[in-house]
Amino acid sequence: MERARRRERVHVAGPPAAGSLAIGGEEARHLCVRRVQEGDEVVLFCGDGREWPARVARAGRREVTVEVGAGTLVDREPAARVTLAVGLLPAQAFDLVVRQATELGAAALAPVVTARSVARATGASQLERWRRIVIEASKQCGRNRLMEVAPPVPLAPILEDAPRPAWIALPGAPPLLDQLGEAGGLTLLVGPEGGFDPDEESAARRAGFAPGGLGASVLRAETAAAAALALVLGGLRRRGVRRS
Amino acid sequence: MERARRRERVHVAGPPAAGSLAIGGEEARHLCVRRVQEGDEVVLFCGDGREWPARVARAGRREVTVEVGAGTLVDREPAARVTLAVGLLPAQAFDLVVRQATELGAAALAPVVTARSVARATGASQLERWRRIVIEASKQCGRNRLMEVAPPVPLAPILEDAPRPAWIALPGAPPLLDQLGEAGGLTLLVGPEGGFDPDEESAARRAGFAPGGLGASVLRAETAAAAALALVLGGLRRRGVRRS
Repeated sequence: MERARRRERVHVAGPPAAGSLAIGGEEARHLCVRRVQEGDEVVLFCGDGREWPARVARAGRREVTVEVGAGTLVDREPAARVTLAVGLLPAQAFDLVVRQATELGAAALAPVVTARSVARATGASQLERWRRIVIEASKQCGRNRLMEVAPPVPLAPILEDAPRPAWIALPGAPPLLDQLGEAGGLTLLVGPEGGFDPDEESAARRAGFAPGGLGASVLRAETAAAAALALVLGGLRRRGVRRS
Repeated sequence: MERARRRERVHVAGPPAAGSLAIGGEEARHLCVRRVQEGDEVVLFCGDGREWPARVARAGRREVTVEVGAGTLVDREPAARVTLAVGLLPAQAFDLVVRQATELGAAALAPVVTARSVARATGASQLERWRRIVIEASKQCGRNRLMEVAPPVPLAPILEDAPRPAWIALPGAPPLLDQLGEAGGLTLLVGPEGGFDPDEESAARRAGFAPGGLGASVLRAETAAAAALALVLGGLRRRGVRRS
């Protein structure tokens, strides 16, 4: 659904000062691939909610120089701040979760190491990869705030610390959409392939995570994550919830 | 979210008769990979809404013989019959749409050739591939009716013939979820990468497709398809719509 001929969005490390700015690295390569030329308009964003119009002064393969205009706050965030906690999945499936959660408007993504997670946490390079996906998805979808991605943690700290109200996606549970209140912040917990084990499920219930259903089918984890986000953010939008 | 240790589901070409049944081909290979053994319980389905319990009598690599029990109607279909029409996408992205639409409960998927579709329709093998994905997803998600997948068609016949009410997913349009009535059948139209061109958008509006929004972000086509389905089926479930 991306519109044709829209201005390329460029991620920069921090708020750019007015005047001339040199863009290098991956972002310069991306602009080169997209055949951005001298005189083209682009949009800069750094993840703080603002965006800056900029005009390309010089387009090289390794460096693109732009003239930066005045920044404005352009908030495309959903009404509620949703934390999505998902059991670790094989790399390709979790990459999809990162991308779709960014597009759909999750505020934060918490990868969780669970009993049935086949995939393992693999350290800093994995986190860097996910953060890169967040940036790429934000360029495409127009978000000016970056979804936070935490390093993988066990389930216990999520159950203790995640924002409430909180739901755990479980097949056969009462519809999630029926249970939404007026929350400005909430947590959705989705299991890995194979689901949570019975101990984890009980621990989540004891910690106040309400079981929420997503229909009659048994969804794959990545589909469940996307469906839960779409439902919750769509459902809360309907109630006119605005972030404080 | 698939539960561990559940019975393997096997797709068969038509309703099996009671007694002994030989399963060959891809389904036999799949059971072999899943280490199904003599005495194991499996479930057969052919896509007509029923399922049959069966016990493995002999498990070979090329052929698995099962003893078939009595079939029962086990309906895991959503309340409304949703036709999802999506602009053709590159193979991997459209495969994801086929899989997630099956899981989320679309009744039919119509691939559409649009002005900005980069991908081309490539004939019978492509359709066969999509139908295979529907079967695999149905085995996993528990649906006993197969989502129909039509060969790709131009937009015009979709605008003319698709079930009403109908919505076209457009960035910035009023929220789709606010517009749902009590429909037992409906159509969702989602553009390809790059969206619909202005002529297509006007034609859809003239044909009575109401613009429906999915939030503030510009979603990729495959995310828009999943989000629209989750919202519509979740929203209608809330209203207690039952299929006639």
